[in-house]
Amino acid sequence: MSDHSIDRETGLTLDPRYGPDGLITAVVTDVATGQVLMLAHMNAQALDLTVATRIAHFWSRSRQSLWKKGETSGHLLHVEDIRIDCDQDAVWVIARPAGPACHTGETSCFYRRVTAEGLESVAPDA
Amino acid sequence: MSDHSIDRETGLTLDPRYGPDGLITAVVTDVATGQVLMLAHMNAQALDLTVATRIAHFWSRSRQSLWKKGETSGHLLHVEDIRIDCDQDAVWVIARPAGPACHTGETSCFYRRVTAEGLESVAPDA
Repeated sequence: MSDHSIDRETGLTLDPRYGPDGLITAVVTDVATGQVLMLAHMNAQALDLTVATRIAHFWSRSRQSLWKKGETSGHLLHVEDIRIDCDQDAVWVIARPAGPACHTGETSCFYRRVTAEGLESVAPDA
Repeated sequence: MSDHSIDRETGLTLDPRYGPDGLITAVVTDVATGQVLMLAHMNAQALDLTVATRIAHFWSRSRQSLWKKGETSGHLLHVEDIRIDCDQDAVWVIARPAGPACHTGETSCFYRRVTAEGLESVAPDA
């Protein structure tokens, strides 16, 4: 492991390890329920804006554009805390959601359970 | 949106949308604390083994091999629940960890807070 990698793991300098696509992964949880709400991606601009404005911003891979989550729907994600992982290629956003996080209208995008027999619907907030 | 995409979002058939690298993203939380422990990736075999054995398996991108988390250290992740997201390209594993989830020895890989001034250490279990 290079010194650079060690610094990235142990240091207190923000040094995100963006992928070839310029993105890191972001996982969002609800500060009130602990539920994982969604997974998305951030480029440097989205991360900067999220830190600066305390409103979650992502990079939409499908639209290839900056995505202020809830800009249209009003379902903003108000940021309570942001963590970064050991190798700085993923962030954990702890948020207070202003509405459903999923475009389907579900509270969380993770509304189905994986079982050996297939998927099952999960009750909201379960 | 194609019918296939609609089925993938609303249906109860497991149909993971693996990326060009054959992987989906997996986020692991601790069933007891709600903490996000780690983010990793699964190929079809890792997902199948996780569902079948109730022990988390991943695909190590660095080693390019199947990775039974904790096989060497004993820090297995016992699976309590598995969820899949709307477009089936990410899973949420709710686990009972047998030890620290991070290779650094930290409980969670997300042991630093991102602030406008840089990173801060986070107290364990905070």
